[in-house]
Amino acid sequence: MDISTLVGLALAIVAIVFGVGSEFITIIDIPSFFITVLGSIGATFIAHPSSKSFKIFNIIMEAIRNPKIDNIETLRTLYSFSEKARREGMISLEEDLPSIQSDFLRDGLRAAVDGTDPEEIKKILEIKMDMYDEEQEDKISVLDTWGAYAPAFGMIGTLIGLVLLLDTLTDPSTIGPKMSIALITTLYGSLIANIIALPPAEKLRKRAGKNINQMRMILEGILSIVQGENPHLMEEKLKAFLSEEERKQYESSKGENAF
Amino acid sequence: MDISTLVGLALAIVAIVFGVGSEFITIIDIPSFFITVLGSIGATFIAHPSSKSFKIFNIIMEAIRNPKIDNIETLRTLYSFSEKARREGMISLEEDLPSIQSDFLRDGLRAAVDGTDPEEIKKILEIKMDMYDEEQEDKISVLDTWGAYAPAFGMIGTLIGLVLLLDTLTDPSTIGPKMSIALITTLYGSLIANIIALPPAEKLRKRAGKNINQMRMILEGILSIVQGENPHLMEEKLKAFLSEEERKQYESSKGENAF
Amino acid sequence: MDISTLVGLALAIVAIVFGVGSEFITIIDIPSFFITVLGSIGATFIAHPSSKSFKIFNIIMEAIRNPKIDNIETLRTLYSFSEKARREGMISLEEDLPSIQSDFLRDGLRAAVDGTDPEEIKKILEIKMDMYDEEQEDKISVLDTWGAYAPAFGMIGTLIGLVLLLDTLTDPSTIGPKMSIALITTLYGSLIANIIALPPAEKLRKRAGKNINQMRMILEGILSIVQGENPHLMEEKLKAFLSEEERKQYESSKGENAF
Amino acid sequence: MDISTLVGLALAIVAIVFGVGSEFITIIDIPSFFITVLGSIGATFIAHPSSKSFKIFNIIMEAIRNPKIDNIETLRTLYSFSEKARREGMISLEEDLPSIQSDFLRDGLRAAVDGTDPEEIKKILEIKMDMYDEEQEDKISVLDTWGAYAPAFGMIGTLIGLVLLLDTLTDPSTIGPKMSIALITTLYGSLIANIIALPPAEKLRKRAGKNINQMRMILEGILSIVQGENPHLMEEKLKAFLSEEERKQYESSKGENAF
Amino acid sequence: MDISTLVGLALAIVAIVFGVGSEFITIIDIPSFFITVLGSIGATFIAHPSSKSFKIFNIIMEAIRNPKIDNIETLRTLYSFSEKARREGMISLEEDLPSIQSDFLRDGLRAAVDGTDPEEIKKILEIKMDMYDEEQEDKISVLDTWGAYAPAFGMIGTLIGLVLLLDTLTDPSTIGPKMSIALITTLYGSLIANIIALPPAEKLRKRAGKNINQMRMILEGILSIVQGENPHLMEEKLKAFLSEEERKQYESSKGENAF
Repeated sequence: MDISTLVGLALAIVAIVFGVGSEFITIIDIPSFFITVLGSIGATFIAHPSSKSFKIFNIIMEAIRNPKIDNIETLRTLYSFSEKARREGMISLEEDLPSIQSDFLRDGLRAAVDGTDPEEIKKILEIKMDMYDEEQEDKISVLDTWGAYAPAFGMIGTLIGLVLLLDTLTDPSTIGPKMSIALITTLYGSLIANIIALPPAEKLRKRAGKNINQMRMILEGILSIVQGENPHLMEEKLKAFLSEEERKQYESSKGENAF
Repeated sequence: MDISTLVGLALAIVAIVFGVGSEFITIIDIPSFFITVLGSIGATFIAHPSSKSFKIFNIIMEAIRNPKIDNIETLRTLYSFSEKARREGMISLEEDLPSIQSDFLRDGLRAAVDGTDPEEIKKILEIKMDMYDEEQEDKISVLDTWGAYAPAFGMIGTLIGLVLLLDTLTDPSTIGPKMSIALITTLYGSLIANIIALPPAEKLRKRAGKNINQMRMILEGILSIVQGENPHLMEEKLKAFLSEEERKQYESSKGENAF
Repeated sequence: MDISTLVGLALAIVAIVFGVGSEFITIIDIPSFFITVLGSIGATFIAHPSSKSFKIFNIIMEAIRNPKIDNIETLRTLYSFSEKARREGMISLEEDLPSIQSDFLRDGLRAAVDGTDPEEIKKILEIKMDMYDEEQEDKISVLDTWGAYAPAFGMIGTLIGLVLLLDTLTDPSTIGPKMSIALITTLYGSLIANIIALPPAEKLRKRAGKNINQMRMILEGILSIVQGENPHLMEEKLKAFLSEEERKQYESSKGENAF
Repeated sequence: MDISTLVGLALAIVAIVFGVGSEFITIIDIPSFFITVLGSIGATFIAHPSSKSFKIFNIIMEAIRNPKIDNIETLRTLYSFSEKARREGMISLEEDLPSIQSDFLRDGLRAAVDGTDPEEIKKILEIKMDMYDEEQEDKISVLDTWGAYAPAFGMIGTLIGLVLLLDTLTDPSTIGPKMSIALITTLYGSLIANIIALPPAEKLRKRAGKNINQMRMILEGILSIVQGENPHLMEEKLKAFLSEEERKQYESSKGENAF
Repeated sequence: MDISTLVGLALAIVAIVFGVGSEFITIIDIPSFFITVLGSIGATFIAHPSSKSFKIFNIIMEAIRNPKIDNIETLRTLYSFSEKARREGMISLEEDLPSIQSDFLRDGLRAAVDGTDPEEIKKILEIKMDMYDEEQEDKISVLDTWGAYAPAFGMIGTLIGLVLLLDTLTDPSTIGPKMSIALITTLYGSLIANIIALPPAEKLRKRAGKNINQMRMILEGILSIVQGENPHLMEEKLKAFLSEEERKQYESSKGENAF
């Protein structure tokens, strides 16, 4: 789990609670809640296929969970495979396949072990990367859509409130509380968009980018193994995919291993 | 039909009805309806060729209907064609052409059966994909345009209402109901954009993306058949186009067939 | 002329007239007209070279006129040239050059007749397509710019009105009519943007896209002729550029010709 | 100087003067001027390196000056160089280098005269084009930034004004003039963005595009000369870079020269 | 340090102080500060991985510091390496590696000294450039996000203030000061976005672009050295990466060296 997601959520809630103070009951209005949430979820359902839109809350939960993307471990694995393939031949990697967790790496290596042409392996893995990217984007865009329609239905709620309020504007002393309620949908719409929908979408997008990056590294590694490149050259190439921090960590751990 | 479109529509309507409550008559105003709808449809007609803009309601209906995109069946078909072409020769596929439903697959296979050069087949099918993409975008953008002009004409209606209202501002007691009516066009514009125009556009766009994806799969499949590739290699390549769920379904169904 | 442009314009005007009703005189204000129109046209002139910006009204008229883009006729012409070139040699097409209306097709064919290398023909025609695209975009973006500055100057007019109004706010009974006038510039800005400037820009952009599409078809056709490809293969390739409707029409007309 | 820049500026000023009328003094407020201008220029300075942001007024002046981009003369020059290189050899162009005004053309031709490999010449000139494009974009984006921050600081000024005004809201009769002043910063921000910053940015961007276009023409011309292509083929290729108007002018002038 | 960052910051602060005048205490409100800052920082934390979002203030400080990007020195260094490699062989550069400051240049040269294939060197360095670009974008987008959420939470704060205010609207004389406070969050949100978050993001983005540019130059230089190109041809190519100003400075300094 990414700690910043939780800290961020806590800060945002503290900010709201702080702002509302003791009058919390005032900003709670059930009809406003239904207009904003049902309306915007409704529009999101229209906009996305049921295979994605019905999972909207799962998608948000996915943003909170945060599977570690371990480029260092991946590089080490690829390096050891490269050495083994050189020593004992490509076919020797077959026994390692079942223990590989990443589908992408396992499928790619299996194709390599099966003797598939490098060009074909590259093509297959690139299609898989495209599909992963598209699948992620399909999921993340559900939250983007919700984040766009929540303020829209907030405004629709406020407009309905204003139209009803102004139509019967006779007693000026009642305009305040009624307008207060009319505004609550706009507030709800903003809160949904700016806390629940859009920030998690952004986090998922960043993570998908990191995964694509790792896939590129794996692709280069597999091609290097298939073509029988020197493991050290492969290592050099794959190290280029690490962030500065990861590179330092990788190199210091190599030093330790050397002992 | 995509169930989420209907559920979404129902939710959005419930939200509005819930918000308006017993005073539904208040938010109905015929002149406001004409200003917003005629104005925004008018602008949409100016913006798009008649071949597309006159079909605006058909396009919305198309978003509600939801033809299934069956990648698994397509993969099975391509696999059986690949095996048949290997066993009995390319020409043997000619008898299967009439029973193929997808224009794209049939046209591509016919070219292959006719002995067209693979490079040319690729070019023809890629042009077809470009044209499909452009055609879909031309259609979908009609809804985008409506979704952009509806709030604009909603605001124009409200501005006209305000200008007329303020010009004769003498009796303060009448300002409320008049302003209420002035605001109704903005409400209508928002409802059109956020329920009727933009969400269906998004759904059509997602679907077009899935179709393009399937076309890419068919293209790879046909090229593989023409080049006489091993059916299993082709299968491996095309499986990369399936979503995770589809892949599981495909593999389990293969297992069953094996019995 | 595209019928939808006229119908759209009529609908938009009806909507406005309907909204204003009998008080049409109220929304007419000459100074507001000058602020909005002169200001936004001024900004547009600053933003675009005089060779384009001074022709702003011609550009709008161009959107109303609607030269037919006849892909079917173009395909037939290319097919007949292809057959003739096969039968009588490339040079025989020279006599057809003067009767060709499309500059693009004529220039390309002339280069072909002159024996220019196919690679060079492709390069020349692709530059021409780029230039056409850029030229169209330069023209269309004048309207986009106007459509962006018209509401901006509408708001500037309203701000000026409000500043002057509030500065001398002594007699509350005069605030209504003055504010009414202040708002008229915003109304004018919206009307210009949403009826006169942006929708025609969109239509011109769609049309330019169709023309580029036709140029791509002509380019493929000429290359096919120069390389002496079979006319039927060329036909098959070029048919991929037709929309579904055009394809049906083309094929049914071929059937008739066959009688 | 581009006449449309001046005409546009005049129109915009007339529009404002017309709108304000005899009460010009009312919309002048020195503190408002400082808040809007200093604040937005400050933000622009933070956003851009000093090598660009400190020249913000020079950049605006550059938009007003308008160096002619003479594609016809350039084509003629390249044509004459092509003929000379054919007749007297590449080396004969050395004597023409000092008289060439365009750095891009001169540097490219010098490389050609020095016997640089065509691939290398292409690479060098393409880097130069990229750098020119980036340099222009760096400059133009300073104005875009100012155009974005000016309305933002206009709104900040108005917000400050409102906060101060509302805090001491006791005498309702003073609210008008104070609010009038509060709004002036928003007005200033709009005027800066929509007259001084954004339209000139657009004009500079259009001009940079034309220059890039000419560079593409020169690049093609030099490559053609180096490869010893027929001058007429080169002419045909380069004519594709001319606009329709330029082409007519070029051809008619050629006719005259032929006398 | 880039002087324009400091000047810009000073100007913006002067503008605000000037606008507020002697009533500075009025625009200070601690709860408003917490709502806006905590809320928007919270949303930013949700949106970005903790490895980046927790460093938000470091990122801003990085925009203020301004490491010089010295293209001229880099070109000189590459030129001297090129000459040395020609005279004494590639391997002679090994002794220079430790003294090279730029990681990118050192890693690239080391690969060259190690005899890595030029294609592989190109691939490794291009991956490094992609990674640098992505890393920078990941950092900069934290500020973009803050700049987007700060006004959003400013508006949320104002909405909460309005809802609470209107709900208990009984004594009209208290509406002014309460509304004043409600507006302060919007003011804070605007100030954060337009001074602290967005302008530094822009400056970092410009700088990253310059660094990428320098990396392209280094890449070309190393490839040129590996391929044993003439140092003068390399110099000519790399000079194309210099800005006009840098080119003049480089050439005049070369002249001096010639003495």
